[in-house]
Amino acid sequence: MHHANEILFSLFIVFVAAQIGAEIAQRLKMPGVVGEIAAGCVIGPSLLGWITPEQIASGTPLDVLSEIGVVLLLFSVGLETRLEDLKKVGKSALLVGVLGVLLPFAMGSFWAHSSGYPWDKSLFVAAAFVATSAGITARVLQELGALQRVESKVILGAAVIDDILAMLLLGVVVSLQGGKGFDVSHLLMVLAGAIGFIAVIGWGGSRVMRWNSTWLDKPSSVYSPLLIVLALCLGLAYVSTLFGLAAIIGAFLAGMIASETRQQHTLEQQFQPLLALLTPFFFVLTGSKIDLHQLANTDALIALAVVTLIAIVSKLLGGFLGALSLGRIGAAIVGFGMVPRGEVGVVIASLGLAAGVFNDQMYAIIVAMSLLTAMVTPPVLAWLLRRSVGSTPTQESEA
Amino acid sequence: MHHANEILFSLFIVFVAAQIGAEIAQRLKMPGVVGEIAAGCVIGPSLLGWITPEQIASGTPLDVLSEIGVVLLLFSVGLETRLEDLKKVGKSALLVGVLGVLLPFAMGSFWAHSSGYPWDKSLFVAAAFVATSAGITARVLQELGALQRVESKVILGAAVIDDILAMLLLGVVVSLQGGKGFDVSHLLMVLAGAIGFIAVIGWGGSRVMRWNSTWLDKPSSVYSPLLIVLALCLGLAYVSTLFGLAAIIGAFLAGMIASETRQQHTLEQQFQPLLALLTPFFFVLTGSKIDLHQLANTDALIALAVVTLIAIVSKLLGGFLGALSLGRIGAAIVGFGMVPRGEVGVVIASLGLAAGVFNDQMYAIIVAMSLLTAMVTPPVLAWLLRRSVGSTPTQESEA
Repeated sequence: MHHANEILFSLFIVFVAAQIGAEIAQRLKMPGVVGEIAAGCVIGPSLLGWITPEQIASGTPLDVLSEIGVVLLLFSVGLETRLEDLKKVGKSALLVGVLGVLLPFAMGSFWAHSSGYPWDKSLFVAAAFVATSAGITARVLQELGALQRVESKVILGAAVIDDILAMLLLGVVVSLQGGKGFDVSHLLMVLAGAIGFIAVIGWGGSRVMRWNSTWLDKPSSVYSPLLIVLALCLGLAYVSTLFGLAAIIGAFLAGMIASETRQQHTLEQQFQPLLALLTPFFFVLTGSKIDLHQLANTDALIALAVVTLIAIVSKLLGGFLGALSLGRIGAAIVGFGMVPRGEVGVVIASLGLAAGVFNDQMYAIIVAMSLLTAMVTPPVLAWLLRRSVGSTPTQESEA
Repeated sequence: MHHANEILFSLFIVFVAAQIGAEIAQRLKMPGVVGEIAAGCVIGPSLLGWITPEQIASGTPLDVLSEIGVVLLLFSVGLETRLEDLKKVGKSALLVGVLGVLLPFAMGSFWAHSSGYPWDKSLFVAAAFVATSAGITARVLQELGALQRVESKVILGAAVIDDILAMLLLGVVVSLQGGKGFDVSHLLMVLAGAIGFIAVIGWGGSRVMRWNSTWLDKPSSVYSPLLIVLALCLGLAYVSTLFGLAAIIGAFLAGMIASETRQQHTLEQQFQPLLALLTPFFFVLTGSKIDLHQLANTDALIALAVVTLIAIVSKLLGGFLGALSLGRIGAAIVGFGMVPRGEVGVVIASLGLAAGVFNDQMYAIIVAMSLLTAMVTPPVLAWLLRRSVGSTPTQESEA
């Protein structure tokens, strides 16, 4: 019974800390998500220690709740995104996705090599600079009611492409470790699998739904459509991990499919309480993973500043150049929207630590960089979006 | 990443199994919850093994989701229960609670002693016969729209009293093991603490809310009332475990407090998607804990039949006699409503196993008994409730 008490307490603490953080952030005119991440940093192991490192490790109940939270969040973002809209911005999204991977990877490997890493390890370090975490940007866009803007569509399309490329890159750099060669045909098969999955689900699913979504009404309860799409969301989140993609990509596709149904509006309403309960776990845990102790010396802080600057500038530049067709402010919104690395950088850093490529300090720096990019983005994005209202093209009028 | 995949898969499987089970049960004119428990038995370790014993152990992500599910369920039941209504049935509820503990405890200890247990161990075994698990009955009453009936109020009030008495009894029997005496003054303090907690929260909280609940509107977001009551629900669930009570008692009190607010109806609506996502985890896990292998011999099956019969008859009799003022059918509804032991019996059996009082077979029998009572109750209760519509007093007209 003692164990159960402890978990209930941690649920309560995480949830309440998120609400207080979000409330403070909003009163300071910042997106609530910034406050939630900051709250995680405060109650986490680095400062108050109200939640312990064991409680936020991978596979723990809090970690699983946080995963469910971000999966539902990306589903709800997909629910506001139609395949048609993504197609319209396909070319920009592709450019943003590709440049937003190449520039951070190139700049990251040069930095790592110049700090004394051999080339094969430098490429591994650089892989941690690459993957955008769509969760944080998506939440800011949602909070500001900006998901229908053309920049948002470009960001979401690019995030899907970004995830495919980052996965491939990780496959390459992992196989390069220890001087082994890598198997091009295997990588091509992985690539084909991932693209095939996205194409079949995204394109095929949307078609099927547009053609006939009355079967959602068949079962007996009022909440049946919700139950069916929840199952779809969990199922596609799982299947996308089988193709080496992040779970949130599958959830996003599930949402995009559901956006074609007649129940789309009802589902949006019904998802709000789910997001209210579960997304705070994701953002608070993100913040609580920053290990301030490893960064408590001048060298580490300087390295962190340099790494973060490279991570921000390289991604911003990639996104900006890729989206120049949207005008300068639009391109800047897209560029900043791609900046947050969030949990993906953390995962790569953990792999690097396990493989002996990273030492503890490099690990802490990469994790802190991932989270700093996540914390820097929301206020800048909010500011740019407010500034640009009316001055850039939108697909639909603002609500 | 592999670990995360596995958990996503188990979430998907549990959720989908629950929906399929519920759908089948409803088409067979049974409450959906029966199908969810049965689905758990099918996909659990005993039959298909799609979820493993390690995945449903205490403190695992699935277990925590199941705990959150039943906490939210009891909150939502509280949300449909006003303190005033409980007060009106106070005398019946007290009688039902007391008799419903004494009869199963007495009959359980005689059975255990007659099967060869010494008296101190018999009392421990009997303690597993005692505690009603309100979750299952609450779900059936909610599914059938019967929460406003006077029988439902009696059951809910009695469940609170039952939980206090069961907790005290467990304290006594644990301290009796190994021939140690027990500390009456300590037990009295525990009793006073539990009653004090319930009185202060239930009575005080309801008063405060009735007097002024506009502060729920103060913070900035539309979903603020929901966020505040979610925090209240998690917080009181935790605090009630500090007083030795089940977490669901605190959640129920939180819901009862929230039922006094102006937002009561909105909150009920907003809780539906939360219940839809999370309660299936509770019911599927309940079913998956039945270990059919331990019961695959004639002796065990006979013992199980006897134990289950004693558990049902003793509780039914206690509830029936306590609620006779409601008429015979009303008293039968209350009696059957108190029958399910659910997870509380499982917890006590685990304690008994750990303390060496139970052997593996006795453990399996007690767990199976707890779950059989949970599976028998819903169809009987549904049948009685349908039969009695119009023939027994209700506090408000049926919706």
